[in-house]
Amino acid sequence: MADNIQALYDLLQQVRPLHRRVVRSVGDHLDGTGIGVGERAVLALLVESGPLSVPAIGRALFLPRQNIQKWVDGLRVADLVERRANPAHRRSYLIAATEEGRGLFAGIRKREDAAIAGLAARLSSSEVEAARAVLAACLEHFSPFEDDPDHPRPLA
Amino acid sequence: MADNIQALYDLLQQVRPLHRRVVRSVGDHLDGTGIGVGERAVLALLVESGPLSVPAIGRALFLPRQNIQKWVDGLRVADLVERRANPAHRRSYLIAATEEGRGLFAGIRKREDAAIAGLAARLSSSEVEAARAVLAACLEHFSPFEDDPDHPRPLA
Repeated sequence: MADNIQALYDLLQQVRPLHRRVVRSVGDHLDGTGIGVGERAVLALLVESGPLSVPAIGRALFLPRQNIQKWVDGLRVADLVERRANPAHRRSYLIAATEEGRGLFAGIRKREDAAIAGLAARLSSSEVEAARAVLAACLEHFSPFEDDPDHPRPLA
Repeated sequence: MADNIQALYDLLQQVRPLHRRVVRSVGDHLDGTGIGVGERAVLALLVESGPLSVPAIGRALFLPRQNIQKWVDGLRVADLVERRANPAHRRSYLIAATEEGRGLFAGIRKREDAAIAGLAARLSSSEVEAARAVLAACLEHFSPFEDDPDHPRPLA
């Protein structure tokens, strides 16, 4: 039991450096696309989940609404997303990926997938699945520590 | 193969939110200790690895030397770490945890371990080990994207 706590502690210690490296890798794959990692995260969500309001994007990404608005504005200027009427709220609107946005994100995912293909080939699907399940359990366990996106605190 | 790439992609998508939650959790366990997550990371390293120079701390934590110096200064003021002569370099010095620093960190680890004990009990040791191995493989795969701690770039 104490051993498993130590093993889990060691696992959690890997999260920060891995986060840093993944963010940089994602950023490098955006070279030449004209968007940054924040815009990419918003575009990915809209492509994968369909149209969403700005507050809903903030809740899904656990990021402050001001950041989301800035990234949405950048994506709109580049014609990668567009506003649509929100059937649920007459005075608000939804943000949706455009065809151009979908095309750009497909290209980004292709590069990202190519960059992890070698790693995926070295790992068995049961190893990846076990890791995904453990990280999901950790995420759930630490969910009380997630931000309220409407009242974010700075990270440390 | 394509399935494993998608599974690995999904796994990597969990890293950012998990990082955020773990940082906040670690920060909450520091309430009343008078130190923050940066100081805690330095103190943990010194307790676990023994005395190190400031540049060596930066390399181990992959963080800019200016941040490390600030946290070391804070820990020294609180008598949690102290300077020692560096046998390898007459004009530099090593930073070492004091008895007080070791005692404080032991208390912090006790709280942190208590906070993950329930999670550790729900996971088998083979699951945790598989996850640790996969994250270690990911860390290694993305190592070209780690910062040079002497020339850090801002994240994103």
